[in-house]
Amino acid sequence: MLKGAVLDRAGHACATLDRETGAEHGPQAAVETVLAAVAELCRHPAAADAVACGLAVPGIVDPAAGRAVWSENLRWRDVPLRKLAEERTGLPVALGHDVRATGLAESRLGAARGHDQAMVVPIGTGIAAAIVVDGHVLDGAGMAGELGHIDVGHQDRCACGGSGCLEAIASAAAIARRYGARTGAPPAGAADVVQRMRSGDVAAREIWDEAVDALAHGLATACSLLAPAIIVLGGGLARAGADLTDPLAARLEQRLTFQRRPRVVLAELGDRAGCLGAGLLAWSRYDSGAASG
Amino acid sequence: MLKGAVLDRAGHACATLDRETGAEHGPQAAVETVLAAVAELCRHPAAADAVACGLAVPGIVDPAAGRAVWSENLRWRDVPLRKLAEERTGLPVALGHDVRATGLAESRLGAARGHDQAMVVPIGTGIAAAIVVDGHVLDGAGMAGELGHIDVGHQDRCACGGSGCLEAIASAAAIARRYGARTGAPPAGAADVVQRMRSGDVAAREIWDEAVDALAHGLATACSLLAPAIIVLGGGLARAGADLTDPLAARLEQRLTFQRRPRVVLAELGDRAGCLGAGLLAWSRYDSGAASG
Repeated sequence: MLKGAVLDRAGHACATLDRETGAEHGPQAAVETVLAAVAELCRHPAAADAVACGLAVPGIVDPAAGRAVWSENLRWRDVPLRKLAEERTGLPVALGHDVRATGLAESRLGAARGHDQAMVVPIGTGIAAAIVVDGHVLDGAGMAGELGHIDVGHQDRCACGGSGCLEAIASAAAIARRYGARTGAPPAGAADVVQRMRSGDVAAREIWDEAVDALAHGLATACSLLAPAIIVLGGGLARAGADLTDPLAARLEQRLTFQRRPRVVLAELGDRAGCLGAGLLAWSRYDSGAASG
Repeated sequence: MLKGAVLDRAGHACATLDRETGAEHGPQAAVETVLAAVAELCRHPAAADAVACGLAVPGIVDPAAGRAVWSENLRWRDVPLRKLAEERTGLPVALGHDVRATGLAESRLGAARGHDQAMVVPIGTGIAAAIVVDGHVLDGAGMAGELGHIDVGHQDRCACGGSGCLEAIASAAAIARRYGARTGAPPAGAADVVQRMRSGDVAAREIWDEAVDALAHGLATACSLLAPAIIVLGGGLARAGADLTDPLAARLEQRLTFQRRPRVVLAELGDRAGCLGAGLLAWSRYDSGAASG
């Protein structure tokens, strides 16, 4: 799902837009969906004074070159998205990465507001992290924050080709898949596993505990390396609420010795965080243009 | 050992000084050694035009407050070192952390020169990392970079109170200790274990391989999270040279799938890197003062 918004200077969404990406019709259709959505938002009365446009897309992104390098879901490859959007809108355009844009939004407008160092961790099909330092998100040539692919010591293979990867045991997709494999009763999704656990299903409890243990391992590692003041959990799995945060915070606490102890909280901005972050990138693009021009 | 230097604008050490810390006579003696060394360097002819002073110390440091909060080795606690050094020298003083100062020096003057993202990893009694992003070293409230305390999946206890810590199996101290425990023949140090390995000692080879495997695990984790372009190995263990870098780079390569692949190299600045980094902090302190004043 593509999500868009008209964002004012204070970070308030004055108008919003939701669209299916149309990626099932091929990468060109997905690109056209993005460009059409941007054009439609530009025509909204709330966007009459729009000064810049921001886009946040999944996969591998080259922000400096303005290119969407690769996305498995959208099946596009090396799309000059910034240039295309600038041609369509006549506005300066900033291009960013969806997870990092989400992290930017949660750090400026959401749950990590006011903290110098934060990690924002969306958990859904995969697990990623936006590492926020002094209000900026680490880029690492577009490759930083791959929390889902650190080895937490189990033996399962991961789709990336490695083994022991955190997301092979603790992503929403992995939780659903592992429950199905263990019980022979494939659930509708991770939310279904959570529901069964709440109803006393022993296998659901086991799968959940294994996921939470692995997450505690992964987050403890991140705490040693990065010393975040706060960890913000988002994505589909965060809908489990306290069933996720309470045991995870407790097990993280057990694993830490002298390290800085972060708060573990739920994301505040929901599934529009990425598009709010794209709007913040647009404002940064405008400010840097105003400064240099 | 305390190391000092007079550093010119280009990062060249015009004069140097080495002193025993005197920490065995208590924390006050260590503080006095630092202050006397700074005063002596200031009297050196090469320092006639000195404009600022930088100090890099181990343990926990609060750079903003200018306080050396705690050091196990020097046994000091909450020393207002910046203020004391300013009183002694009459110069503006910058206070930093030894590992992070080492990272700063290697990134500006040494092996990581020219790379946007780097990790500088001294391996000695412990294992730490300076995480360099765009020429700055992550601080994390003084707690970032604790690479030695990430869980790499062994069962040994660590002095920190945790288990599975990288430095409990792969620090120079751990390598010597584990060789002694396995063979009943305590070595003089990790260099001795390396020498025995080169002479065909099977136990030494095993201990070394276990350490390198654990280091590859830890560095692969850091690559997933931080995507450094280069990893610089320093400290006593780096004296093993290609016996360290070659197998480590190969095993790291095996562990990485899609992640950014860093070069793995030896540090260039040797055991004076920390004091060169302190000098760079001094220049930054001078520049920020000149800018604001």
